[in-house]
Amino acid sequence: MSKKVLVAIADGTEELEAVTIIDVLRRAKADVTVASVGAIQITASRGVKLVADAVISDCVGSVYDLIVLPGGMPGAEHLRDSSQFIDMLKEQAESGRFYAAICASPAVALKPHGLLKNKKATCYPSLLSELENAEQANVVIDGNLITSQGPGTALEFSLKLIEMLFDKQKSREVAKAMLVKD
Amino acid sequence: MSKKVLVAIADGTEELEAVTIIDVLRRAKADVTVASVGAIQITASRGVKLVADAVISDCVGSVYDLIVLPGGMPGAEHLRDSSQFIDMLKEQAESGRFYAAICASPAVALKPHGLLKNKKATCYPSLLSELENAEQANVVIDGNLITSQGPGTALEFSLKLIEMLFDKQKSREVAKAMLVKD
Repeated sequence: MSKKVLVAIADGTEELEAVTIIDVLRRAKADVTVASVGAIQITASRGVKLVADAVISDCVGSVYDLIVLPGGMPGAEHLRDSSQFIDMLKEQAESGRFYAAICASPAVALKPHGLLKNKKATCYPSLLSELENAEQANVVIDGNLITSQGPGTALEFSLKLIEMLFDKQKSREVAKAMLVKD
Repeated sequence: MSKKVLVAIADGTEELEAVTIIDVLRRAKADVTVASVGAIQITASRGVKLVADAVISDCVGSVYDLIVLPGGMPGAEHLRDSSQFIDMLKEQAESGRFYAAICASPAVALKPHGLLKNKKATCYPSLLSELENAEQANVVIDGNLITSQGPGTALEFSLKLIEMLFDKQKSREVAKAMLVKD
């Protein structure tokens, strides 16, 4: 059965992180919707212009197996400030379905809404001290929350998301086709 | 002095490769123009919709310190078939300025136009046998040509491009901020 994934973006999203997550999950045949919390076209943190598949209001009421927050500033702040998106995330967290964030987003977008409460997590190293249960690792998994550190860990993070949604075998197949070394 | 870089894209370009190259080079403060050889908005190989900064006809006559071809199919074929772009690339190669390609593009876009002639190069492993002087390595440098293998080597490739355009110190600084391990 196909897995439904929402990747949220905004002006100032880190484009390498966003596109790595989308690309890698689509290689695993996940049904990925790229949703903007602002206008349908965004300008990412290093100026790349991305056109989303949907705006967030189109996604309210749909059920996703995984919701992912790329990092980047001020992208993570825009995700934090979208009440429609945060309501979806809170329901995701409470339902036990997967949610995941990388780089600035765990500290900037999840923490202020209590979405890291009683969870081990990681984020961009300069923000780690802001987390309650910080772990220094490329990827940290605690129940239905998966977090990661930054652009250099985005590929490992995305492959781990495949493993959580599908299995280790599928993750290895995608990694091999992408020439990712173990 | 700022370095001018052209990154060419098309429908079917590998988006992780394209965006990694653009993002990493802009972190080094290179002046990067993303140019489409088709319409200004393209749909990349895994469905990501990117809006270019320019179309290739806007770039003819400008001088770039580096021209880069991301991979992906049929993106590499569209790059191969753009006579305006190929004319720019031939002048780039003959002038001794840098040109670089990854994944499918060395075999699919450069080779048919004689742009690998007498050069060592690498590409996506399944296409390596099509090259005359193939090398099995993540990144291969021969004079003003830099080539690489695929999505999993895109970050290393992009950091090497910074080293060639600027220096090793700048490449290390960008790698560190992106949390790329040595």
